[in-house]
Amino acid sequence: MQQYCLIRIIATETNMTYCVGLLLNEGMVLLSDTRTNAGLDNISTYRKMFCFEDPGERVVAILTAGSLSVTQTTIARLREAIEDEESDGETSIMKAPTMLKVAEIVGNMLAEVRVEIGEKLSVMKQSASASMIVAGQRRGGAMRVFLIYPEGNFIEATEDTPFLQIGEHKYGKPILDRVVRPETSLADAQKAVLLSMDSTLRSNLSVGMPLDLVVIEKDACKVTLRRRIEAGDPQFRAMSEAWSAALRDGFGQIVI
Amino acid sequence: MQQYCLIRIIATETNMTYCVGLLLNEGMVLLSDTRTNAGLDNISTYRKMFCFEDPGERVVAILTAGSLSVTQTTIARLREAIEDEESDGETSIMKAPTMLKVAEIVGNMLAEVRVEIGEKLSVMKQSASASMIVAGQRRGGAMRVFLIYPEGNFIEATEDTPFLQIGEHKYGKPILDRVVRPETSLADAQKAVLLSMDSTLRSNLSVGMPLDLVVIEKDACKVTLRRRIEAGDPQFRAMSEAWSAALRDGFGQIVI
Repeated sequence: MQQYCLIRIIATETNMTYCVGLLLNEGMVLLSDTRTNAGLDNISTYRKMFCFEDPGERVVAILTAGSLSVTQTTIARLREAIEDEESDGETSIMKAPTMLKVAEIVGNMLAEVRVEIGEKLSVMKQSASASMIVAGQRRGGAMRVFLIYPEGNFIEATEDTPFLQIGEHKYGKPILDRVVRPETSLADAQKAVLLSMDSTLRSNLSVGMPLDLVVIEKDACKVTLRRRIEAGDPQFRAMSEAWSAALRDGFGQIVI
Repeated sequence: MQQYCLIRIIATETNMTYCVGLLLNEGMVLLSDTRTNAGLDNISTYRKMFCFEDPGERVVAILTAGSLSVTQTTIARLREAIEDEESDGETSIMKAPTMLKVAEIVGNMLAEVRVEIGEKLSVMKQSASASMIVAGQRRGGAMRVFLIYPEGNFIEATEDTPFLQIGEHKYGKPILDRVVRPETSLADAQKAVLLSMDSTLRSNLSVGMPLDLVVIEKDACKVTLRRRIEAGDPQFRAMSEAWSAALRDGFGQIVI
């Protein structure tokens, strides 16, 4: 019985999550929630954003959604490879020659872990899956933002599609569709991702505070701003209420 | 080969759809799109809203999402039962003694058709599914709005949850969450469902114009207003643009 419960918890503990990454002319803006649940009666807080920095040289941020056992193991192994002195550009995301190679390393590791854990879970006829956003820049290179699929392949943010989302992404997409362009300022971009998250929080219980917000200015090659927004944060609440009021006013003024 | 293609088309022809039904103190407001696709290169227009009326006595509106073969067959059989002079309150939704019974008849028919078509498709390792919104009132009874699941069971709109959605529902939920209450006026309710659809149209290609809008005023027991909104409808476009402007203004005024 003990054994059974253990496997069940591993299997169903998922980050319902909402994570979003923006690639703008002025920099990259990343936001994630922290809610993890294995059923509505078993909710915890886990960080879903992981930043790796060699300030001025390289910055890589990874946002995760999906099965917690898959994402934690993937991040742990990526970290081990970074700390391993014998690692090279083939295995360490802090030594990889390009951001494309970083995305490949993360994708391969995610796929490997997913298969390993999937084999363990197949005994219980369950499966585990996860996806990630990888954003970063190395000195002399371009800023790049990738969405890594559970199978390890990936797509990249472009001028036409300057944002990528994972997890519970639909509630928060309309505001991004309307507002986010490559030329959007970093201040407006923070507002946009927070309002996108606000819509998601209101519509889906499985996404929850606190939030992790990170801004990486272009060519800084380090995290420029890092903010944890706790439940009840007065600034976030004021913004949320102002947005509600603006929507109500806007709604009231429209004539059909 | 001919045979194979035929089955493939039946199997994949789905209403990605967005349909929404509101149950308000003043009446019921229903909206559906009309896009059906079997892959992005095979898009057609099919009505997804079906109204049955015995004016002053009874009105029943059915909105459909999912596999077109399932929804069309279900509606055709419900219609046959209505037209069959020997049908009774057990089989005809226009003779059923209560709206609850109407929901049961629709649910049972949907489940029956789904299983039948599912058996045909299982040869191709494919499946078909569909869900419906059933809204109506009979003279002397209350207005009721149900969401019918593919298995035939259903839930009902209440004072706490005055709207039900099927299909691609997430993009358009935030605006409904913020605006729709039982005491919302029918005019505001039409605006709310149209803006909810507008957000969905912008974010998802598989939902498309024209739209079908129906209003059923309380105790009228007939369709009070029926409107088909074609692509390029100047009134809809003006509303959409006014809402975009209101969102942009609201966004600009928020300080973080």
